[in-house]
Amino acid sequence: MQRKSFGNMQCPIARSLERVGEWWSILILRDAFFGLTRFDEFQKSLSIAPNMLTRRLNALVEEGLLERRQYCEKPPRHAYHLTERGRDFRPVMLALMTWGNKHFAPEGKAVVLVDADSGEQVEPVLYDSKHDKLITEQSHYVGAGPVANGAVAKRIERVLELRELRELRAARNQVVPQ
Amino acid sequence: MQRKSFGNMQCPIARSLERVGEWWSILILRDAFFGLTRFDEFQKSLSIAPNMLTRRLNALVEEGLLERRQYCEKPPRHAYHLTERGRDFRPVMLALMTWGNKHFAPEGKAVVLVDADSGEQVEPVLYDSKHDKLITEQSHYVGAGPVANGAVAKRIERVLELRELRELRAARNQVVPQ
Repeated sequence: MQRKSFGNMQCPIARSLERVGEWWSILILRDAFFGLTRFDEFQKSLSIAPNMLTRRLNALVEEGLLERRQYCEKPPRHAYHLTERGRDFRPVMLALMTWGNKHFAPEGKAVVLVDADSGEQVEPVLYDSKHDKLITEQSHYVGAGPVANGAVAKRIERVLELRELRELRAARNQVVPQ
Repeated sequence: MQRKSFGNMQCPIARSLERVGEWWSILILRDAFFGLTRFDEFQKSLSIAPNMLTRRLNALVEEGLLERRQYCEKPPRHAYHLTERGRDFRPVMLALMTWGNKHFAPEGKAVVLVDADSGEQVEPVLYDSKHDKLITEQSHYVGAGPVANGAVAKRIERVLELRELRELRAARNQVVPQ
């Protein structure tokens, strides 16, 4: 496999990707959110080769996203349940769903998010509850955290400079010439 | 490659995953959000093999996430800019970042989301602006959309039954015995 390990990178996105593994893992997590727990249920849902499914399930257990529980002694059979870490992946899943619905469902939506009280279809958005505002590219930026190393801090500094430059240019162009 | 195509599936998550390609693609998109546009910038940032980077960039252009623009004629050089479809991927990226920060950054956060007005660090959450409430597993469920086919509708129906069953069981257990 040509992919190198992202684990030594500071970036939380790279780390997340490494832990989730491959696309199959996300589809397994999706099915787990849909209530599937057993090997044969996942296999039927995904039409995935058994050895591949075994590998992916083991990896998800190792990374702490799924928990294996024996539900039958003879023959030994295990079910796979989402852990808290696995459940915390739901916003990523819903964000992927929203993006897919917007850009790759020309015939209409097959799956939607529904408000449990009203039964109405909903478009989830990212929100900053501390400042009570929606998160856009203008309102929020990605900045260096407390443990950012030199490389990360430098890259972010450059991004923020570019951002400021763009804003200053836009402001300059808005000045009406005398 | 053992991964089969998810494209014929109705699921918007599967479709999204197919369009994004591989992990590398998400890291390229991440860097694009950070303002990187040139081949050598991506290569330096990711330490990725040139042929692999070429393949991933071409795929992202084909899927409409990046746009190729020539910035130099001799020698011909191209820059890669996010399209609207690419920019719409930002919530997925931020959700991945949040998840990674919570679960895979034991030494602290290297990268955080910042409110541009106050400069304060922010935790993005998913929000339903139509009903003015946060999105949790309890408040919102994934339901069948207008074009759901039989298989999708059936699976969702089963999930909703399980959900109802859990709630009814919980309610029953809350009834104080006489």
